[in-house]
Amino acid sequence: MFINVEHIGIAVKDLGSGEALYEKLLGVASYKRETVESESVMTSFFQINETKIELLQAIDTDSPIARFIDKKGEGIHHIAFEVNDIGAEMERLKNEGFVLLNEKPKIGADHKLVCFVHPKSTYGVLIELCQDIKNVEP
Amino acid sequence: MFINVEHIGIAVKDLGSGEALYEKLLGVASYKRETVESESVMTSFFQINETKIELLQAIDTDSPIARFIDKKGEGIHHIAFEVNDIGAEMERLKNEGFVLLNEKPKIGADHKLVCFVHPKSTYGVLIELCQDIKNVEP
Repeated sequence: MFINVEHIGIAVKDLGSGEALYEKLLGVASYKRETVESESVMTSFFQINETKIELLQAIDTDSPIARFIDKKGEGIHHIAFEVNDIGAEMERLKNEGFVLLNEKPKIGADHKLVCFVHPKSTYGVLIELCQDIKNVEP
Repeated sequence: MFINVEHIGIAVKDLGSGEALYEKLLGVASYKRETVESESVMTSFFQINETKIELLQAIDTDSPIARFIDKKGEGIHHIAFEVNDIGAEMERLKNEGFVLLNEKPKIGADHKLVCFVHPKSTYGVLIELCQDIKNVEP
């Protein structure tokens, strides 16, 4: 089950100036930075009620964020939904015909297991499923 | 103050097939449709916890949604934040250097007063501020 809009990912060229701008916009400060080596990104998080705004800067030119900015410019990159059982949701979506970008959940930012759904199967929207690692049954 | 991610707007070419796909993806049905003449859009809403997913289809070729799809294709169109005082937030953001797309709050979908912030002042992200009309002081 999809239980929350966990975060919205926004691709920026420069994390420092992105943070300064989003602090002014949202009226709150970023509460943490985290580098996710597997995705070649540096991230910065803001909390608004039960949803986070995650700024993403590429740390190399092969990063999906670098490719996204090359193609579309800075802007909204993905929507992440918190799910109660990531394995079950991946199975359900695959059976519904959605194209998953990873076959098994992988470790993402913020202590989460994550899976991405290809935007070609969702009218152009990159969707992330995520579940806190501490909530995953072994 | 920004108090919640009220909704995420997604531009689609066809609301009917968009609804069918998002019902499968999110695992919940759309709970209402609404036409917003001032924006030349038909909308359809899904609720996930405290945030809505709003699908948007243009109803004429001058609609901002038609122009968005022509330029960028279907996909995430905007993020809407619920604020506690839309007039005060508009004033605050203008003073911070953000470019507002309307000088005064206007009536949007879902019984809200709304104001859009130009994406050129937010690294490519179209931001909507909204406040329920019943919560606005006269």
